[in-house]
Amino acid sequence: MSTATLRLSCPIRTGISARVTAFTADRDCIIEEAQQFSDRRTGRFFMRLVFDPQANDIGSLREAFASIAENFEMEWDLREPGWVPKVVLMVSAFDHCLGDLLYRMRIGEINMEVPAIISNHPREKLTTSLIGDIPYHHLPITKDTKPKQEAEVRRIVKETGADLVVLARYMQIFSDEMSKHLSGMCINIHHSFLPGFKGAKPYHQAYKRGVKMIGATSHYVTDDLDEGPIIAQDVENVSHTESPDDLVAKGRDVERRVLAKAVRAHLEDRVFLNGDRTVVFE
Amino acid sequence: MSTATLRLSCPIRTGISARVTAFTADRDCIIEEAQQFSDRRTGRFFMRLVFDPQANDIGSLREAFASIAENFEMEWDLREPGWVPKVVLMVSAFDHCLGDLLYRMRIGEINMEVPAIISNHPREKLTTSLIGDIPYHHLPITKDTKPKQEAEVRRIVKETGADLVVLARYMQIFSDEMSKHLSGMCINIHHSFLPGFKGAKPYHQAYKRGVKMIGATSHYVTDDLDEGPIIAQDVENVSHTESPDDLVAKGRDVERRVLAKAVRAHLEDRVFLNGDRTVVFE
Amino acid sequence: MSTATLRLSCPIRTGISARVTAFTADRDCIIEEAQQFSDRRTGRFFMRLVFDPQANDIGSLREAFASIAENFEMEWDLREPGWVPKVVLMVSAFDHCLGDLLYRMRIGEINMEVPAIISNHPREKLTTSLIGDIPYHHLPITKDTKPKQEAEVRRIVKETGADLVVLARYMQIFSDEMSKHLSGMCINIHHSFLPGFKGAKPYHQAYKRGVKMIGATSHYVTDDLDEGPIIAQDVENVSHTESPDDLVAKGRDVERRVLAKAVRAHLEDRVFLNGDRTVVFE
Amino acid sequence: MSTATLRLSCPIRTGISARVTAFTADRDCIIEEAQQFSDRRTGRFFMRLVFDPQANDIGSLREAFASIAENFEMEWDLREPGWVPKVVLMVSAFDHCLGDLLYRMRIGEINMEVPAIISNHPREKLTTSLIGDIPYHHLPITKDTKPKQEAEVRRIVKETGADLVVLARYMQIFSDEMSKHLSGMCINIHHSFLPGFKGAKPYHQAYKRGVKMIGATSHYVTDDLDEGPIIAQDVENVSHTESPDDLVAKGRDVERRVLAKAVRAHLEDRVFLNGDRTVVFE
Repeated sequence: MSTATLRLSCPIRTGISARVTAFTADRDCIIEEAQQFSDRRTGRFFMRLVFDPQANDIGSLREAFASIAENFEMEWDLREPGWVPKVVLMVSAFDHCLGDLLYRMRIGEINMEVPAIISNHPREKLTTSLIGDIPYHHLPITKDTKPKQEAEVRRIVKETGADLVVLARYMQIFSDEMSKHLSGMCINIHHSFLPGFKGAKPYHQAYKRGVKMIGATSHYVTDDLDEGPIIAQDVENVSHTESPDDLVAKGRDVERRVLAKAVRAHLEDRVFLNGDRTVVFE
Repeated sequence: MSTATLRLSCPIRTGISARVTAFTADRDCIIEEAQQFSDRRTGRFFMRLVFDPQANDIGSLREAFASIAENFEMEWDLREPGWVPKVVLMVSAFDHCLGDLLYRMRIGEINMEVPAIISNHPREKLTTSLIGDIPYHHLPITKDTKPKQEAEVRRIVKETGADLVVLARYMQIFSDEMSKHLSGMCINIHHSFLPGFKGAKPYHQAYKRGVKMIGATSHYVTDDLDEGPIIAQDVENVSHTESPDDLVAKGRDVERRVLAKAVRAHLEDRVFLNGDRTVVFE
Repeated sequence: MSTATLRLSCPIRTGISARVTAFTADRDCIIEEAQQFSDRRTGRFFMRLVFDPQANDIGSLREAFASIAENFEMEWDLREPGWVPKVVLMVSAFDHCLGDLLYRMRIGEINMEVPAIISNHPREKLTTSLIGDIPYHHLPITKDTKPKQEAEVRRIVKETGADLVVLARYMQIFSDEMSKHLSGMCINIHHSFLPGFKGAKPYHQAYKRGVKMIGATSHYVTDDLDEGPIIAQDVENVSHTESPDDLVAKGRDVERRVLAKAVRAHLEDRVFLNGDRTVVFE
Repeated sequence: MSTATLRLSCPIRTGISARVTAFTADRDCIIEEAQQFSDRRTGRFFMRLVFDPQANDIGSLREAFASIAENFEMEWDLREPGWVPKVVLMVSAFDHCLGDLLYRMRIGEINMEVPAIISNHPREKLTTSLIGDIPYHHLPITKDTKPKQEAEVRRIVKETGADLVVLARYMQIFSDEMSKHLSGMCINIHHSFLPGFKGAKPYHQAYKRGVKMIGATSHYVTDDLDEGPIIAQDVENVSHTESPDDLVAKGRDVERRVLAKAVRAHLEDRVFLNGDRTVVFE
């Protein structure tokens, strides 16, 4: 990848995209992809620009863009070509999402590196064997040790310089402190079509309610459980013949593709927070 | 249609299907379709048999089957060839589901006749013009006139000999008494993917929550609002660019196909109540 | 609608979007939606801009933009606020797509007016009754009268000033001359998931092949039958229990929603020809 | 699993299911699942019965059933409780389907054992590391060595007593002899929505044609390439922004879930050949 990615959001005003595209045009950068969206309800403008920086140095571009950004009150980032984000993966003994993310990383479908895997279960309880030499941290958790365990997680996230933490069916509920600490940089997969079936055992809830489709939802973690901004969702048909265990099995397929979609979109700078909702540029 | 349909449910026991299929085989009936399901959780067995009765008279078959049915404690029905169910349609000014059901009836896709359309809006407020000479009852409703209006609805249902009442976006909440009165013979379309977004303005709720798919749910009406047994559901993708009004427009497509699917399945005797859930033989 | 829509495509060059957005920013127009795409393979750039023109007069904007357009070798259009496109609908006796489009028009979901409906069947053969006082042209066709009939169609298209012709299950194959005449302004719905099952009786072909899903495809009409650029597609699951007639019935639902999606996208200036493919801005 | 599975097909006659269910009822077997289908077009009847054999010995049941089977000219099988089918997996260097099947086996989602993996690529070219101590046969193939290589494959299939051979993106075309040899016991995944885009590089063909959805098809291998009876299909949306490589990446998800679905259905005795089509009991 020899392209840079500029992502920004700011209050809606006339002339934002004119100013931004003039900036790249003036420097002979070639735009490969551009998406923008104005949300009249929240009054915010969102933009993502993928471009070939040509002869330009990214440091200089950043410096030059800073004054535009300030002028428009932008929240923004400029990713340099070849950037590889660091992602810490957290998992329970249900490791289908973990194995799926690792496989996609290894074949180049998701651009990331994984400096640490954290689980409350020992490595031998897992099925996937794609972990290889990725550092595996077994951090058991009980009600009493939770504050200490979470502190240890935060330490690993900090030391590895992680850009993102993914709860790949981690199955533990973060403390409010922890949720706030990881705000905007932590993605969870919930095994239901939210807002239906929050909380524990959603497939059993779904079975009991007799729904004809089950789903999965990937969202940012907030201190309001299962209420974080949604990034991706998908569903599958089910029928009266399927037991709760059948739903669990069918759900694994939905979960892993929904989580992979959300993680990939986030890492490609396609996702923006917009109040309690998200903007996702496909 | 020259086939008869036998539908039954009863407590699980050994030999039910053997007894039923022996009954048809002994009388040289030819089975066209057969579905069965045993629900170990509720202890109930469900069966649907579509067969060519050959020389047999339906009245005699009914009489002969009654003793088997009694022996196995069956709830059952035997539809004669050519049976056309009577369906009363109820509607508000949003008539996309009504128009859709009428069209499917007219081209022969749904086997039914409609002896009455009931609305709390005058006919000229509707868009579809497929009503033709179907009796149209304009029954306005206010908080005060509700009991009287519902009594009038019940009268029409009774006088027309309706087999089913369909709330095709009727938008009024039945009293408990009314719900009980129509129990098992009244299908509603709710414009959300239940159990998410119960109650009023579900598309606006969905917009607010930022879901990435919207849906519709067809279910039997019970006195517990939006909690009745689900017959059919479906969804559509939505994105951050879509306003609540866009969701409403997209939802119309989902609603009408989900309602049509449920109504057709019910009228073809494919749907069985199983506690709070349904068995639907596709 | 008080917004204008600018659509354009041109050879890829640096600075196109900078130039276009400077044009609107300089005139205090407020951008509501913007989409762009660069196709490296064909070397073409595509852009759609929906904006509030504020105090600007559309005629003046058109005049001012013309020199930019010439400079960049653009194909372009600028739709004024409130523009209502004229669409001629052609149909056979299978009128589910026709009825669906008319309903969507009447409730305001598709912004169009219909100055003429053309069919090779008399009006009384149709089921939908939403035609109302739209001029209905019954133009029967035989092998011998085809040239004359097509000339008559062309005359109606011309006289009504139609912006688009929609073959809503018209079921007649245009002559090459006719296809060329309507090039880029005629949309067809084919009742299969192209490129599978071209030609006649696609549901019967699908049944014979034993596919597990059927579909529909909406595309621009070209002189190469069923090979025109695709605008929209969708599918439904089918099973071994379904006869060819069941597929036909299920297909009607897919056809009408795929055709409506394509027609709406075209009329909202979201569709661009790109060689044998299309760019569709969602 | 303590249930046995009886599968059978035979010419349509009156009294088949009566006879079969009398057989199980007379021996106090408890039916857990039963599906049947009569195809009037081919004149064949299909049935699958999952039952708890209670005190009955499977050998005795088989013996007793043989005369019924003969009388009705049945093709049939009776699987004993706890049966674990043997499946030989064949793969190229694209191993996403292989890894997926192995994972599903290891977590118990697909009931099978894998006595051999065969590839024309060395093991170190593969990404998945779930192979473990499953015998891995590297059998390179060239035009000249093809007959010898295929003979070696047949030897392995025979020696391992394989019940099924799965081409998990094997990417080599079998000789007619080989296809015939494995007839009815070999499942392939083709990376397109057949019958569209047969042969090589289907995603590139799909890109070129500009389809708005891509798909995958799992089918039995026959000597008519990509024309074998279809077991399962699925699709995903694509847009003009996606390159052929994007389609390849998105297609991997569809391929692995379609192949897993077909393999599982086959191994659970849910799939029957019916001329060029299949009957699949869900």
